[in-house]
Amino acid sequence: MSDLDKVLANIDANLDAAVERVFTLIRIKSVSTDPAYAEECRKNADWHVEDLKSIGFEAVAHATPGHPIVVAHDRSASGPSALFYGHYDVQPIDPIELWDRDPFEPTLRVREDGSKEITGRGSADDKGQLMSFVEACRAWKAVTGKLPIPVTILLEGEEESGGVNLPPFLESHKDELRADIGLICDTNMWDPATPAIQTMLRGLCGEEVIIHAADRDLHSGFYGSAAANPNRILARIISDLHDDNGRVTLKGFYDGVPELDAGLRAQWDTLGFSADAFLGAIGLSIPAGEKGYSALEQTWSRPTCEINGMGGGYQGAGFKTVIPATASAKISFRLVFDQDPHQVRAAFREHVRARVPADCRVEFLEHGSGSAIRFPIESAPFVKSQKALTEEWGKEAVFIGGGGSIPVTAMLKTSLGMDVMLAGFGLEDDRIHSPNEKYDLKSFHHAIRSWARILDALSR
Amino acid sequence: MSDLDKVLANIDANLDAAVERVFTLIRIKSVSTDPAYAEECRKNADWHVEDLKSIGFEAVAHATPGHPIVVAHDRSASGPSALFYGHYDVQPIDPIELWDRDPFEPTLRVREDGSKEITGRGSADDKGQLMSFVEACRAWKAVTGKLPIPVTILLEGEEESGGVNLPPFLESHKDELRADIGLICDTNMWDPATPAIQTMLRGLCGEEVIIHAADRDLHSGFYGSAAANPNRILARIISDLHDDNGRVTLKGFYDGVPELDAGLRAQWDTLGFSADAFLGAIGLSIPAGEKGYSALEQTWSRPTCEINGMGGGYQGAGFKTVIPATASAKISFRLVFDQDPHQVRAAFREHVRARVPADCRVEFLEHGSGSAIRFPIESAPFVKSQKALTEEWGKEAVFIGGGGSIPVTAMLKTSLGMDVMLAGFGLEDDRIHSPNEKYDLKSFHHAIRSWARILDALSR
Repeated sequence: MSDLDKVLANIDANLDAAVERVFTLIRIKSVSTDPAYAEECRKNADWHVEDLKSIGFEAVAHATPGHPIVVAHDRSASGPSALFYGHYDVQPIDPIELWDRDPFEPTLRVREDGSKEITGRGSADDKGQLMSFVEACRAWKAVTGKLPIPVTILLEGEEESGGVNLPPFLESHKDELRADIGLICDTNMWDPATPAIQTMLRGLCGEEVIIHAADRDLHSGFYGSAAANPNRILARIISDLHDDNGRVTLKGFYDGVPELDAGLRAQWDTLGFSADAFLGAIGLSIPAGEKGYSALEQTWSRPTCEINGMGGGYQGAGFKTVIPATASAKISFRLVFDQDPHQVRAAFREHVRARVPADCRVEFLEHGSGSAIRFPIESAPFVKSQKALTEEWGKEAVFIGGGGSIPVTAMLKTSLGMDVMLAGFGLEDDRIHSPNEKYDLKSFHHAIRSWARILDALSR
Repeated sequence: MSDLDKVLANIDANLDAAVERVFTLIRIKSVSTDPAYAEECRKNADWHVEDLKSIGFEAVAHATPGHPIVVAHDRSASGPSALFYGHYDVQPIDPIELWDRDPFEPTLRVREDGSKEITGRGSADDKGQLMSFVEACRAWKAVTGKLPIPVTILLEGEEESGGVNLPPFLESHKDELRADIGLICDTNMWDPATPAIQTMLRGLCGEEVIIHAADRDLHSGFYGSAAANPNRILARIISDLHDDNGRVTLKGFYDGVPELDAGLRAQWDTLGFSADAFLGAIGLSIPAGEKGYSALEQTWSRPTCEINGMGGGYQGAGFKTVIPATASAKISFRLVFDQDPHQVRAAFREHVRARVPADCRVEFLEHGSGSAIRFPIESAPFVKSQKALTEEWGKEAVFIGGGGSIPVTAMLKTSLGMDVMLAGFGLEDDRIHSPNEKYDLKSFHHAIRSWARILDALSR
């Protein structure tokens, strides 16, 4: 019996305890975007420090102007090193009334077909996924007393809230963090049977815009029409962001966005992606993006502009005839290929300013910036990991694109010069960022086994 | 000393007690639009019943499917009768953080120039204003034991929330309520020195629209672009409501909207209205309405379309990369002359439906309907009342238009066949519907005296 086989058996035997640790983490309300939960974020970071120490890592929670960053090292092995990144913070839980269960009281729910899922905020994104790597390390240490390769674990607490404190931290801890390959577990399988390594990631440019009109809320009967209404101004700004073909209208927005090359497009065609199934699963049927592109291209290789939030005036029950003093929106652009987030931000602000009347005022808040990124799938770590995943799942692992942005990926590349392998085990129906988030027990279990195999493969 | 002089002296002598009664009313949180305050509304209605009984009225709080309607009669006099209408409900208080004082804990604030104001939600709209009429009645009864004319008082509790229960009540109590003239105190002076009778009132059509897209909130990284975003759909709907000249684009919207006749326009020109001062007082400078019309015409004689509230997605602190399942807006149209609120509503819904993708769904909620209205300023009650106001204020009372909608005015006209005289003593800076609402003590004091004079004038 090889060491790897013993490790896999250890993982199978200790799954319940691993699930219990994820439960403990879900109970910690580490909502990073809301300052009310700062103490919970600290508590969560401290838990990881103690847990990693118990496995034999040297672990420290570093204070930042925001939430702590956990760094842990295990240098019990030699050879090519890996830096694993995860984030312990979670998305807000609103709208709370749509949750079937307490988002912070996890359960192991048994579904009609007998399969099980871990329920709760962060079960998939990213508490369950990041713990799959930690559990693989735990099993290796338990069985062999060491890891196959030197490993550093970096856990951030602000991934869901702009992550402004991570870049300076990476910059000031370059030497400590640099490794031969970055590993991230925050993405999805291609489908429930097919493991996937994501090799293209869209970038992000997040903006909040606040329109200030009158210096107070006004009665719309007295001031209506004559006084500028910031809701109307904002609606015009948002509406004008897309043309009738679904293209973003910002000046220079498509600079650096080539058409997809024929080879990759052909490979994607073989994936058997169904727009009907993709949209049908969420109650929709018509791809809403750029005309002339498939839904897969719209989400993987084309840039987007989404209004994540907007609001102004009275939104409670009933009616209030008010003209509000302000209206605001949170808008994110997903970027591809060589789009420059700073250029996009500048073009957006120009678009907004051109639509704000001279007697009103506009305020901008920056919420995160990251370029798009691609990794070399022919290099050794990618080839070895693909093989390891294929062995675990009994089905050829695929290289995929993807719509989400994980800004740290680009930072690790640019700041530390590392390639990053994104191997994740989430499923499309995990409802991350939504009510009733879950993580399949099967995903968690095989994710741990997958990482155990990848650590082994990278050492060879 | 005439009876009127004695009554005016009585009012002056008892002003403190009158203010104390308004304070008592402001402390009752009668926010009609929010079901959480239903009990407070009931309490407020009961207070009026007891108070009016104490003056000698027969008073009853009638239950409705919503908040109670108070009806009180004093038939101690003969002659032409009057029906006074007021509303005891108030607007919501949000955004609460912008109030300098507790909205429900009134104070008599002394301003820098030594003048005083009653502070709190409803101080002007309409608790202070309606009590000015009640206090005038109290003084007449105290001095003479009776009122100059037969008076019925009708107090509604749903004026700020659509008032759906008033029309059937008026219909079923026609004979009890019918009078020779309707009186309402819910409007403004022309300026702090010039009393005014409002003779034109815009109508109202209130609509709430809810766009339903996906069946859950989505991660904008995974679904962005491909999945319909209800914020974007709603922004397009709102943006398309006006053209570049500020005209409302709904089909047939301007049917029944004549240009203002030259005579009335000439009279309005003499009022010395300053758009700079009107907008400057609220921190603005550019009339935002239809091009080619003055700010006065925009608010008095032209129809409007205002977005009173809109919202969708994440609006808390920080950022959340979500595509919401729904987005909604509350929109009101102010109507003039012969515009038909039902036709406007139908045209609005057609406008919305044409902009909702086939895989999304739209829901509409109706929030009030009322036609615009004008009254004959040459008839006896208007002439007599104008004279009484002129005597009280020492300055010629003017006949004005106005932007607000008081739907009951149209109902009294159509349902009960009565003309209605709107004499109000609010000021432009009263901040009704806004944080820091106030009612000048001088307004309140002279309003009571004004009503005492009008009751006397109507009896002659």
